[in-house]
Order: sequence, then C-alpha cells, then structure tokens
Amino acid sequence: MVKVGVVGSTGYAGYQLSMILSRHENASIVFLSSHNYSNMKFSDVYGNLRGFLDNSCIDMQDVGSYLTKIDVLFLALPHGQSFDLVEKALGLGVKVIDIGSDYRLRDHMNYEKWYGVTHRLTDALKYAVYGLPELYRDSISSANLVANPGCYPTASILALAPLVSTGTIDNTSIIIDAKSGVSGAGRSANVSTLFCECGESVKAYSIATHRHTPEIEQQLSDAAGEKITLSFTPHLVPMNRGILATCYGNLKKDISQNELYDLYQSYYKNENFIRITDSLPETRYVKGSNICDIAVRVDERTKRVIAVSAIDNLIKGAAGQAVQNMNILFGLSEHMGLDMLPNIL
Amino acid sequence: MVKVGVVGSTGYAGYQLSMILSRHENASIVFLSSHNYSNMKFSDVYGNLRGFLDNSCIDMQDVGSYLTKIDVLFLALPHGQSFDLVEKALGLGVKVIDIGSDYRLRDHMNYEKWYGVTHRLTDALKYAVYGLPELYRDSISSANLVANPGCYPTASILALAPLVSTGTIDNTSIIIDAKSGVSGAGRSANVSTLFCECGESVKAYSIATHRHTPEIEQQLSDAAGEKITLSFTPHLVPMNRGILATCYGNLKKDISQNELYDLYQSYYKNENFIRITDSLPETRYVKGSNICDIAVRVDERTKRVIAVSAIDNLIKGAAGQAVQNMNILFGLSEHMGLDMLPNIL
Amino acid sequence: MVKVGVVGSTGYAGYQLSMILSRHENASIVFLSSHNYSNMKFSDVYGNLRGFLDNSCIDMQDVGSYLTKIDVLFLALPHGQSFDLVEKALGLGVKVIDIGSDYRLRDHMNYEKWYGVTHRLTDALKYAVYGLPELYRDSISSANLVANPGCYPTASILALAPLVSTGTIDNTSIIIDAKSGVSGAGRSANVSTLFCECGESVKAYSIATHRHTPEIEQQLSDAAGEKITLSFTPHLVPMNRGILATCYGNLKKDISQNELYDLYQSYYKNENFIRITDSLPETRYVKGSNICDIAVRVDERTKRVIAVSAIDNLIKGAAGQAVQNMNILFGLSEHMGLDMLPNIL
Amino acid sequence: MVKVGVVGSTGYAGYQLSMILSRHENASIVFLSSHNYSNMKFSDVYGNLRGFLDNSCIDMQDVGSYLTKIDVLFLALPHGQSFDLVEKALGLGVKVIDIGSDYRLRDHMNYEKWYGVTHRLTDALKYAVYGLPELYRDSISSANLVANPGCYPTASILALAPLVSTGTIDNTSIIIDAKSGVSGAGRSANVSTLFCECGESVKAYSIATHRHTPEIEQQLSDAAGEKITLSFTPHLVPMNRGILATCYGNLKKDISQNELYDLYQSYYKNENFIRITDSLPETRYVKGSNICDIAVRVDERTKRVIAVSAIDNLIKGAAGQAVQNMNILFGLSEHMGLDMLPNIL
Repeated sequence: MVKVGVVGSTGYAGYQLSMILSRHENASIVFLSSHNYSNMKFSDVYGNLRGFLDNSCIDMQDVGSYLTKIDVLFLALPHGQSFDLVEKALGLGVKVIDIGSDYRLRDHMNYEKWYGVTHRLTDALKYAVYGLPELYRDSISSANLVANPGCYPTASILALAPLVSTGTIDNTSIIIDAKSGVSGAGRSANVSTLFCECGESVKAYSIATHRHTPEIEQQLSDAAGEKITLSFTPHLVPMNRGILATCYGNLKKDISQNELYDLYQSYYKNENFIRITDSLPETRYVKGSNICDIAVRVDERTKRVIAVSAIDNLIKGAAGQAVQNMNILFGLSEHMGLDMLPNIL
Repeated sequence: MVKVGVVGSTGYAGYQLSMILSRHENASIVFLSSHNYSNMKFSDVYGNLRGFLDNSCIDMQDVGSYLTKIDVLFLALPHGQSFDLVEKALGLGVKVIDIGSDYRLRDHMNYEKWYGVTHRLTDALKYAVYGLPELYRDSISSANLVANPGCYPTASILALAPLVSTGTIDNTSIIIDAKSGVSGAGRSANVSTLFCECGESVKAYSIATHRHTPEIEQQLSDAAGEKITLSFTPHLVPMNRGILATCYGNLKKDISQNELYDLYQSYYKNENFIRITDSLPETRYVKGSNICDIAVRVDERTKRVIAVSAIDNLIKGAAGQAVQNMNILFGLSEHMGLDMLPNIL
Repeated sequence: MVKVGVVGSTGYAGYQLSMILSRHENASIVFLSSHNYSNMKFSDVYGNLRGFLDNSCIDMQDVGSYLTKIDVLFLALPHGQSFDLVEKALGLGVKVIDIGSDYRLRDHMNYEKWYGVTHRLTDALKYAVYGLPELYRDSISSANLVANPGCYPTASILALAPLVSTGTIDNTSIIIDAKSGVSGAGRSANVSTLFCECGESVKAYSIATHRHTPEIEQQLSDAAGEKITLSFTPHLVPMNRGILATCYGNLKKDISQNELYDLYQSYYKNENFIRITDSLPETRYVKGSNICDIAVRVDERTKRVIAVSAIDNLIKGAAGQAVQNMNILFGLSEHMGLDMLPNIL
Repeated sequence: MVKVGVVGSTGYAGYQLSMILSRHENASIVFLSSHNYSNMKFSDVYGNLRGFLDNSCIDMQDVGSYLTKIDVLFLALPHGQSFDLVEKALGLGVKVIDIGSDYRLRDHMNYEKWYGVTHRLTDALKYAVYGLPELYRDSISSANLVANPGCYPTASILALAPLVSTGTIDNTSIIIDAKSGVSGAGRSANVSTLFCECGESVKAYSIATHRHTPEIEQQLSDAAGEKITLSFTPHLVPMNRGILATCYGNLKKDISQNELYDLYQSYYKNENFIRITDSLPETRYVKGSNICDIAVRVDERTKRVIAVSAIDNLIKGAAGQAVQNMNILFGLSEHMGLDMLPNIL
C-alpha cells in the first residue's frame, strides 16, 4: 500500500486527485492539505463526497510533520510555492509528484523568464523527470521527483510527438490552437470565471505568452532532436472539463493519411490510455477518463497535417496522469485506479 | 418603405432576420415563408414573439405569387434550393439577398466541387455581388443579387483582409482556426445538436473539407491580388451564438504590433460595425449585435501575426449583414435597424 | 430630457439599467457610479459596450456633489447601504428609484427582522411607493421614492394577484416555488457562482427564510385585504437570466380554467408588459424584454390552481421595471426605452 | 455470473445501464439491442466507449432468439412496447427488469387512462413488484418481474415516504415541484431538446397531467395506508443530468426540524444509497452516482414541512436502480457495480 499525501487538495486538480486516490486499491491517503479550507472536512468543501472522503484537511503549515509517514507527496500548488516542501520531502526520501509547474522546465532561466519568479531549488531541475509516461516511462520509473505535465502540454505533445520525432513536418511551422474548459482556470473566486461571465462565450487568451509554450517546446525539441519554436494559442470554452488541441504542421514529405495513421498506431502501440481514432476527437468522448484521443488529417490542398487530440484536463491533463506516474514509480500496474470509463453526459 | 419577403424564415438565420426586419423603421414585411411551419403563426414557432410577430407563415410554394408585391427578397435556404425563386424574382426586377451559399462562389465548377450539386443559375454568378459591405460597399449599392457571406467567411475575411491586401504576410502560410456556437448548425432536429450531445464538449469538424474554405480563399485572393490557398478548421463550441476566428500568418516583414494596429485602424476607419480592440475579442462582447471585434498580436518568437475576430454568427454572420446590405441597396443609412447593443448576458 | 444618475452601475442590475437608459430617448445619463470600478470606464468593465457607454464611473463617495444635476437617482445597492444617499437626494427634491430592498417593507421592524440591519430612514417608509406599475400605477406617478420590487416578488405577485384579489383561492394555502438564473446572485466573486460550481446543477436555497418572502406577503395581503402568510422556495438554475415562479393555491370555489383565463385577461387588460399565454411560460420567451408571461392551470383532481409566471430577472425583475417606474414618474410613455423584443437565443 | 440482455440500449437510460453492466463484476452482457442503431457497434453510437463497449447492437426483432441465453432481461423502451417480449421472457423463466413504465401501475385501467394505450399483459401486473429497494427490498428479492420506478417517482417517494408513513403531514396537502435535466427527455431528435432550444431557459410542463403522478400516488398511498391524491409539477432545467424534488406538506402535528431529521435518519438507517444531509441537496452532489440526498426543513410560519431530494435521473432514477434491483434478485451485494463516486464536474 502506497502511503500518499496531497498538498493543495481542494483546488480542482487536487479534488480530482483525491477522488482517484480514494478509490485506488494500492494507495492509502495519509493526509489532504488545503490552504483555504484547513481544518474543514474535505466533504464539507465538496459536498458530493459526504460519506466518502470525510478526512479533515490539514493546514499546509503542518505538512512537514507528516512527511515521514508517506511514500509519495503530491503537490497541486500555484507556481513558485513548492520549493521548501519539495526540498524537505526529497531530503527525507519521499518521492514527489508535482502537478504544478515548478520542475517542468529544465532551464531555470527559462522558468524565471516565463513565470517571473526566482527558482529556489534549481538543483532539483537536474534530476526531475518530465512525467509523460507515453514518452518517458523508463525514466519515470526510477525518478525521485516527477514534474507532472501541464494540461495543454499533455494534449499538444501527445498529438505532435509522432510527427516531430519522425521528421514528418517542418518544425518551424508548428501552430497549436488549443481549447480548454473552465476548470483549467482553477477554483479561486474571480469575476472572470463566474457563471455569467464565461458562459455563452469563447475567447483566446495569453496569445504568444502562455507559460505552457516553453514546456511544449522543450519536450518536442527533445523528440525532434532539434530546437523547436512554435506558436501556441489557448482558448477558454464554456464547459467544465476538457482540452482539445488542434495542431498544424507543414508536411516535409509526401505522406498519405493512411500512412500517418500507421505512424501514429505504431508510435502509440501498447499504450493503454491513447486511442487513435478515425473520427475526430470530441472532448466529451474522453471526459472523466485518463484517455487521450488523437486523430490526424492531411490537407492535400495546403500540404499540411492537422493532428487533433482531446483529453480531460483534470485527469490525463493533471490528476490522472499523476496517479499514472505514481503507479510507475511504485511498480504498480499503470492503469490501477484509472479505469474510469469516459462518460459523455 | 422597403417591402420585403423572407423565404426560410423559421430557421435560426431567418428568425433573426425576421426580428430585425420587424423593428426596421424603413422596412415592411410582406410575407414570411416557411417549409416546415407553413400556415402556422410565426409566434407559435417562436413563442417569445407572441404579440410582436404574429404573421402567418406562407408556404414556400406560394412565394411566387407574392413576388410582385415586394422590393427585395431574402432567402435563407439550404444550398441548391434557391435557383427557381431567384430566377423568378430577378426577372420581375425584385432585388435578391441570398443568405444561403448559392451565389458566393463565382466559379460554378468550384461550387459544384465543394457543394456536390449542379448550379442551375450560372448566369447569375456573373453579376452577383459578395455582400461584405466593409470591402464591397460600392458594388453592393448597385447590385441586383447580393450573395450574403457565410458566418465563418465574414469573421475570417474581416480579420485577414488588412494583412493580405498589404502584403504583410506570406499568403501561403494562412491558417484559420474558427470556433462557432451551435446555432450555426441550424434548427433541424438532429441527434448531434441535442442539448445532451453538444453541451460540455468541443470538437473540430470538416477539417480541410468545409465549404466555407473556397469562399474565404476567393475573397482573400481578391484582396491580395494573387491566388490564396489556406487551411480552415471549424470547431463546435457549447454556446448558442458567436464565432471566434483565430487567424495565423507568417510575417513577411518586420512590423510591430503598434504598426499593425495602425494598419487595422486605418483599413477600417469610418466603419460603424468594426471595432479594433486592444484586448482580445470575446464572442460575448459582440453577442446580439452586428459588430465585429478584431484584435491583433505579433508573436516575436515565431515571426507570426495572430489576428482574432469575433462576431455574432446570426447577425453580422447572417441576418444583420443581410439587412446592412439591404440598407445599402436602398440608399438607407447603413446601420438602420442594426443598432442593437451587444449584450453579454 | 430626464437627467439620471445611477449608483451601483457595475453590478448586473446596474449594468442592465445603464444599457437601457443609454438608449432611452428621453433620458440622459449624468453619472454612473461604482464601488469596485470607480474611475474606470464603464466599457472597460463591460467590454461589449466599447464605443457605446464609455463614461468613466465616479466613486460612490462623489455622488453627493452630482445630486443637484439630476432629476432622478437610481440605486442598485446591497441592502442597508442606501440611507444617507436617499435622504440627501430626497432633501434636494431629487426623485429616487431604489432597485435595492431598503424601502419595500412598510414596517421597519419587519425589515430589521428579515434583513438583520437597523433601518436608518424609517420616515421614508411612510411615503415610499412599491413600484409595481401593474398594481400601483397611480401612486407611483406622484411618488418621490419608489421601492422597485424584487425579482422574485415581481414574478410571484403578478402571478397571484388576480387570484387573491378575487377570493378565488384559500389564502392560507399559497406556495411559491421559484427558479432563478445565476445573475440573480450578483457579480461578486464567490466560489459558489463560479462556472464550474453552478453549471450542471439545480438546488433550493434559503427555504422558509428568503428575504423576498415578507415582501410578497405584504403586497398580496394588500391585494387580498387580509394578512397572508405563505411558503416561498427559491431555486438556483444554471442559466444567466430568468425567473420562473410556479405558484400553487387551493381553489375556494368551482372555477374552470377558461374562467380563470377570463379573470387574468380582464385583470391585466391594457397592460403592455403582461402576456396571458395559453401555453406554459418559458423563461427564454421573455429573455431580454420587460415582459411577464403568465399561464394558469386548474388541477381538477386536487382542486388546486397552478399559476406560472416568467420574467427576465434583470429587466422586469429589476432594471426594466425601474425604467418603467421612471417613465410613470415623469409622465412619459410607459414603454419608452423598453421595447426590446424577447429573444430566445 | 449473471447473464444479461438489454433492450433499448442506445437511449440514455440504456446507455447508462450498459456502461454500469459492462463494469459489473458479476454480470456478463449477452446482448445489447437497439431499434435505431441495430448492427452498429455500440461504441460507434457512443464514441466515448471505443475500446470498452464495442459490442454490435442486435435488432430488437432478434431478441427473442437470445432469451434462452440470459438470466435477466432489462428493457428500456417507450411505454406500450414491452408486452410481447416480457411475456416471452417470463414464459422462459427469464427474470425481467423493466425500466419503462408498463408495469408500475397495478391497475390497468389507471394505466390506460394516463398512458392512452391498451395494456396487453394485465396478468403480469398482479405479480410485478415495484422496484424501489429502500421500500420493497423483500418483495423484489423473489420477484420475476420488477417494475423499475420512474425518475421523478424515485426522488419524490424517497423524500415523502417517511412523512406519509408516519402520519406527519396532511395527506391532502402534498405538492411536489420537481426539476429535471434534459436527458430525462430522451435521445430522440426533437427540436424542443436542441441545444439552442433548451439552454438558458426553465419551464414547467405537463402540469396536472404528467404520467408519473399516478405512480407516485400509488406508492405513497401504500406507504400511508390511505388513498393519496397530490399535485405534481415537473420542470425542465438546462443541465444534462439530475432531478431535484421539492416536496411540500402541511404538518399535522407539532414537530421540530430535529425530530424530523431523527425520523428520516431512522427510516433510512442502513441504506447505502440514501444520505440525509444537513445542507440542502444539489443535483451536482449526486451526479454520476446511485445516491439520493435528502434534506428537510420546517417552515414554522406556515406549519409546513419542505423535503428536498436529489438524484441522478439516469442512475438512481433509472439504470443504477435497475442494477440495484438485479443485485437483489440474484442475491448479490446490493451496491455491486454501483460504487461510482458522485462527481460535481
């Protein structure tokens, strides 16, 4: 039984993580911590879980004293707030899976440029492993610190890795146009995410400046073996869950759609959580699951390929992937606790 | 007083058109026709209009006998169904504004390729005028047949015309990633547009095959003075109204964001229905109005420009623009009947 | 031209009011004040209104110095915050229309019991007029202080007044089960009204304790000529706008549904904003308008009448009714500025 | 392993049922049948289930030949279509659980009056058992034909049974005001349930005439030991799932809220799927689960009790309850296959 602690359990990613862990047959929740709701029962914050997750949330301040009781620490915190806890946990031999963004960029200068805060645990960047199992399963299995990918990067990298790793597209031509549900904006009380403010509307935001851009570039550069710079445009869509990434690239060679399907099928063969689908992905088809659906189209007229991926941002884009990483870290079956069926309604 | 008839009045575009016309101080509705709801009161189909638009819908079959009583005929029909009526109307000297897609493509071969039906009024294509007032106001004013633009083309062309007409971008690099509300799919009873099927989801559709593609290409080619081929990807978003077009192009020259703003401001100066906005467009900011919001961003890292436009698909993308065209045709003030404030809620 | 000032203009009711006033042909906005957004342009708070309502919001503190420049002061404030301003305005001979709840209950003890704050302008309660034009048009016309009705009371009273005023139902049997859209909860940043928290759910709240209860009772008691105590249960529904009130009463006499329709038609004859409809009201049928739809059903099996009314909570339930009252106060045509068509989409 | 067949598997209730059964550790799906999608893969109808439920749907015509291979037949059909199949199945000793409404009313005259069709299997009504486990667990365990309750009746009866069975309220005073999500209207292609037609609106429907009324009355009469006639008003709310029932009754005796809570706690003690909650139920708190939340309030001013219940209409209101009944029929643990956590997002 893997003993786990969750820091930041009452945000949406933390909520989803706690739900999944509470049903994981080989995990045991030692503590849930919360900043805003410390000393409240988790099920008083999320009334749906009355009778299921009645743990009292401990205060973030008190997490330190629980570290010796756990095998793995999950963090779901805003950027720049993880350093002390992670340092302490790693020092005690506790494995760390950070759902936040503090250990995803290998270059701390890059981190500081995009996030605007000083990185205070740069050593950890040397051995942090990017937690995208479909690409880095082996490294994850022996990691001490797993940097769980962002939601947009998960969808984008999974859609594009087969293309860039095979030299199929011109790597200077990549454009990712992504659409996210509102839960991606978190659970803080902001006017901009009120029901009446973001229903019945769609908008782009953070054009050319979104922090997930360097993360996607870093991983795709690794896959390509050359430095990739790309355009990434996130959009906010009036739905709770889901990310759809529509990815464009100019074909470098003549390749048919069928050949592309073969390429994708082969690249992701034996993957439990990837479905290469004939029809175009819809976020509802992966909702509530750890699955990533991918389809690909060739536009013969413009010699472009369009790869479309869909994930549930809170699951494959956050909590589910974190548990997938935990399973790998502890030698468990990778889909343990993650067999939720996608559910359209 | 302009005497008008509306064919296809009970679809969403026809509904919106009928509402606008009913409030237009210089228009008088002679008839509303409907295929599915003939002989029903319009306000029995749209219960909100009880007491306001109680006209009985005439059958499409009976429209012919009303043509001598009107000055202008609006058609909001599926493609391929307008030929007989339009021929008859034009023969009687009645002006025609077609909200459908039968007269938008100048080349009937192109029409037949994309729409899969034979064009039976190819002569009309020679003198039909594309009804985008911001680009073709003068031609519209003396037209007999106005091809009202599609919703996606309206948003896309308005966003890109300033760029292609000035040689600012590489015309082979254009990608349009557009997002539409569900009313764009029409009012027919399909499982795919049921509340439970398209809420809480986003999807791409008709990748590389959508019929609005050649329409956008034709108009942008005109603006550019060279043939443009581009990628267009439409998406369905769980909201009633609105289109957001996110348009990408590679910059051919060094140009700052400020200079781009100057270019757009100048291109659309004196336009009543275009707002060049500093902040990024949101479809809710144009909802219920005939306005198109446009913002532009330079991505210095990739040397791309991203132009984003937002319209209400049923108004500037259909019925509102049709009335704008009618106003031009009849020498009325262009915004007559179109002064609805955008309303976020 | 009526010169108006609006206090609390950036909440949802204030927003709606400012929009309506900006289009009113006989009103001129002298100032818009805001607590949270003072010194910002109104159109920077509500980006849809760029170019239409670019007034800079003044601070609530500065309203006093503007009072001599206006004919009527609208207030859209939380309860208990209007006293000083109202006193000052009335002292200067400025008419006041309070969209808040400080002058609706005639008995200040009742106010203090339900609202939990001390009433500091009890004198005003003696001459404040309840601003429901369909019932109190004459008194409103000569009022100095109009207490604009709450949203739930507007829908409930209009549905039940014909019944209680004619002794048709047992007044001890009245139950009002009402459903409201989320804009009724206001524009403050609360977790409970985030998109992800109130979408895809319905709940009852404030059962037996909602502050609109005594307001409804007071007005229906007046209409009945006897003291009425009733049950009122509000519900929150995942939509932006709209209130539906389903009202139950036990019939005291044998009366057919047709006779009831006659009763309602006659009670509301000549009313511009009331539609007695055969089919059951839907909130979308009144959305965006100042209309109240009412239908009535007899349940022969239980000898009950069920009256259902629908309004747009921000218009007939707040801002629209306030303008209707202004029109009456200043001898204008009652529907001036209020001719917006209801719009389902 | 219980061998099951599902008729009507591609409607929403059938979909939910098939999903639950596919994960049930003691059930094995022998066939899924569909009228509209026969010979299609289930996962081509519900794309989310690709890889999980790829069974080919058999035609309803062919079900007969499969009956000897199953232990239990589930039917999710419109009323009046089950008679032949049920007769055949029962004749072969196959247990039947009917999610439809053909065997819920004991009196076939009552059925014919409310449903407007002739009952062609009246004998079965004599031994059909109403499948509400919390009230009839013992009878269900030995039944051959289980009439699975309607969604509204499930919520209503569970909320009111503790009151009527203890003589706490005046049984002539019962009013049930219920609110349902759109999936309750089924998956047929109707204009009235299009996204654009039922979003952003709430309405009452079938006032005093809804077919679930006699079903609620029959069961509550049983619980009360006297004939109950009541008012039931359903409403349509813009959400996918969920029913909230707000139930009113006049108190016959002085009873405090605390005493009422004791009554409910005791009535439902040991029930796995009932939660008596202090705070008021919200449908999101039971979404995706087989749980029914119930809270109760005393309105001291009017001497009424208001009991509010929330269920997921497709689970506790249909498919989940059907599986609960199957578990009871076959001596399995009652919550087998039904341990889904409610999930707000």
